[in-house]
Amino acid sequence: MDRITTKDTPHHINETITVFGWIHTRRDHGKITFFDLRDRWGLLQIVATDQTNGPVKDIRPEYVVKLTGTIVKRPEKLINPGLVTGTVEMQAESIEVLNAAKTPPFEVDKDTSNVDEETRLKYRYLDLRSVRMTQHMINRHRVAQYIRGFLADRDFLEIDTPILTKSTPEGARDFIVPSRLQPGKFYALPQSPQQYKQLLMVAGLDRYFQLPRCFRDEDPRADRAYGEFTQLDLEMSFVTQEDILVLAEELFTTLVEKLFPEKRITTKPWPRLSHKEAMEKYGTDKPDLRNDKSNPNELAFAWTLDFPLFTEQTKEDFFHGSGGASFAPSHHMFTAPHPDDVPLLDTDPSKVRGLQHDMVLNGYEVGGGSIRIHQAEVQQKIFNLIGFSKEQSASFNHMLEAFTYGVPPHGGIAPGFDRLLMVLAGEQSIREIIPFPAIASGATAVLDAPAPISDEQLKDAHIAVRLSQTSR
Amino acid sequence: MDRITTKDTPHHINETITVFGWIHTRRDHGKITFFDLRDRWGLLQIVATDQTNGPVKDIRPEYVVKLTGTIVKRPEKLINPGLVTGTVEMQAESIEVLNAAKTPPFEVDKDTSNVDEETRLKYRYLDLRSVRMTQHMINRHRVAQYIRGFLADRDFLEIDTPILTKSTPEGARDFIVPSRLQPGKFYALPQSPQQYKQLLMVAGLDRYFQLPRCFRDEDPRADRAYGEFTQLDLEMSFVTQEDILVLAEELFTTLVEKLFPEKRITTKPWPRLSHKEAMEKYGTDKPDLRNDKSNPNELAFAWTLDFPLFTEQTKEDFFHGSGGASFAPSHHMFTAPHPDDVPLLDTDPSKVRGLQHDMVLNGYEVGGGSIRIHQAEVQQKIFNLIGFSKEQSASFNHMLEAFTYGVPPHGGIAPGFDRLLMVLAGEQSIREIIPFPAIASGATAVLDAPAPISDEQLKDAHIAVRLSQTSR
Repeated sequence: MDRITTKDTPHHINETITVFGWIHTRRDHGKITFFDLRDRWGLLQIVATDQTNGPVKDIRPEYVVKLTGTIVKRPEKLINPGLVTGTVEMQAESIEVLNAAKTPPFEVDKDTSNVDEETRLKYRYLDLRSVRMTQHMINRHRVAQYIRGFLADRDFLEIDTPILTKSTPEGARDFIVPSRLQPGKFYALPQSPQQYKQLLMVAGLDRYFQLPRCFRDEDPRADRAYGEFTQLDLEMSFVTQEDILVLAEELFTTLVEKLFPEKRITTKPWPRLSHKEAMEKYGTDKPDLRNDKSNPNELAFAWTLDFPLFTEQTKEDFFHGSGGASFAPSHHMFTAPHPDDVPLLDTDPSKVRGLQHDMVLNGYEVGGGSIRIHQAEVQQKIFNLIGFSKEQSASFNHMLEAFTYGVPPHGGIAPGFDRLLMVLAGEQSIREIIPFPAIASGATAVLDAPAPISDEQLKDAHIAVRLSQTSR
Repeated sequence: MDRITTKDTPHHINETITVFGWIHTRRDHGKITFFDLRDRWGLLQIVATDQTNGPVKDIRPEYVVKLTGTIVKRPEKLINPGLVTGTVEMQAESIEVLNAAKTPPFEVDKDTSNVDEETRLKYRYLDLRSVRMTQHMINRHRVAQYIRGFLADRDFLEIDTPILTKSTPEGARDFIVPSRLQPGKFYALPQSPQQYKQLLMVAGLDRYFQLPRCFRDEDPRADRAYGEFTQLDLEMSFVTQEDILVLAEELFTTLVEKLFPEKRITTKPWPRLSHKEAMEKYGTDKPDLRNDKSNPNELAFAWTLDFPLFTEQTKEDFFHGSGGASFAPSHHMFTAPHPDDVPLLDTDPSKVRGLQHDMVLNGYEVGGGSIRIHQAEVQQKIFNLIGFSKEQSASFNHMLEAFTYGVPPHGGIAPGFDRLLMVLAGEQSIREIIPFPAIASGATAVLDAPAPISDEQLKDAHIAVRLSQTSR
């Protein structure tokens, strides 16, 4: 990779070099034409004259070009301190057009925040050329790399789990995938790797993590992306809740300090609030504890703890049992009851505290986790309390069976990767920091999905389309 | 994370410590009972006597225990050089059972290679406890970490792309996902991130990689996993084929040297064969160039180059156009023709060479890539030659449109992550190195998928099951 990129050019003063990229802007000054050349790393000022070989006059913004010329120092007063390459410019000897470009539907040399979102997503490859969006992608990479390095250094193993898996009543609506090989049967896309990560603990693969894709067919909200999202999933055996909190707090505190030195964490160590305290004092279990909410560089992390294990079940909880039972899990059905409260499961379940922990940042819940149940009989009791039918319980038989072969006490946390990046970036929607997000209608970026498929594909999948009266 | 694991115990001689894990083996010697305690990091010998508190006599293999005792040096002649902890043992003061365990359906303290595969997959969480399988998971993690570090150091960005995307005729059968929000329409799971990675190059996000999950509903082969697999996907702009070969060769050569020092690469730099030469000399485009095929530590990498751009189209190529055209892509439909051969596209397409490169290891194709087409008119010409209908061409309109907004010349390679690990591990099936693989019938590990789903789920998805005559 010997190619010289824009950011390298200050190290090549008085050398003749070749650079590649896009024409960002063009300014004509009589006989001299100034271009800004853009690549992923930044901008470089180009000076073209009558002496420059190539179609200087024809070159427009977003053309892809190859430029050869001499890097020279700029005169002192023309230095641009806002650019990495602000001390230099290229005197172009030749310019070659590698690909011409139509005029984009919106200006990519400006912030695209105010451009119509459907247009931005249709042309996401143009939207991502803007400085703000490129920086979001770079930060997404850096945060993921930091997390991986931090956990690998602490002896965590990154292990990937299946995407084609089983539909189980876990709290949200599944996406389903018809099986060609087993007619009439279906895979489901995982809402989270919850069961697999617990099975990895049963397997003895202590200290596991991954950045898995999770899928929930939920009715969209303004600040979400439809369908899929990424979380940091981590799980440990033989740990206390305290171990999990300490690890997560160190991970995200050092991440902010190393990668976002301009940010300030309001309170260290992070405040810990009981659910009761949070509700009484702030009226929410995810309070915004910033001192100055108008300061974009303030980050107020907090923990909310001591959640009740159950909330009241509503009709919307039909994914948890019948929807007619009294209790729905506050977190999820694998969360362990507080050991002191296990007897209350039989007498007064609404009083049972769960070993759940929520990670809060600037008023957002950016992660949740718990110590898990590791006894088959307690798990079965929870299934009964949330009103699982025999069939629904049976769909978790593999978990109950695994619990008979030597399960360690275990627990973990799953911070939302997209959500966290959104807050760090100061954006209002996670679609801003996902490379190719889907929108509320379910439509995807650039590629026109969902789309009709062929009769042959339907036949292979052993299904037919069945439009209901209301959807016709 | 202050917990002491087995591997740390030699640093705690004459200290009283607590360790956690599974009982690996038990040996009774009269008043003394020896246990091997197992955790992810290894084994530790435990000596229990009448003085040890706890139910020593009741404890069986695979019980989960907490042990407190003193770490002592073993006498010289009892040192086990095969164990990291072979110089020490624990004199147990107390042993607590955290969870009992039934007798596993197969012995996890032995190599499980010869155990019936369906049983191993049903109880994958037990299979993964075996030393060989645990080591495969550790290597999977280490190889992924090495790749990420190598590429990040060279200024590559890891960028993730959607799983819910569009069905396009790309060469294999898609998995489809019915849309709830858009009745009668479907998403498809990606066969590869091919289009998205090219769009990232259009976006200017030069030097991209990820370890994406790819999905192909292919009829299974003995050494494969059904449905999903992982590849290393990397793409660069403004590069030559030579740049890609040099980068991949350095990546995998240093990976082997750092992580698998016991392995020897047969020839460095890797031999390069033209497709013609390989076929004439070895009768295959993926020759096994090892000097001694019985040596498990020999790795013979090679490149196969100068493939013809097209092969003859067969009925099985119905995914490429009509199945009635003369030509099918050798690699895929986005591979650039050799620049010298572009005129032959009009006169004698069978003579056109493609800028394709295949990475070969010990007789396996472990990766393929190419320089891509970056001109809309050449791409349209390829679509015509492989017999795309107007509708099929139209399903790629977003790509052809993107090509009008300034596409850089670009190319890349996509080594099969699972396949590569399989060869490095000396295994015969990639299912051995995938944490939870699916088998030929489409059945998944542990979770019983595919499975029937509820009428409500079918209704939400606007589909009905339609069993054909033959599948009833």
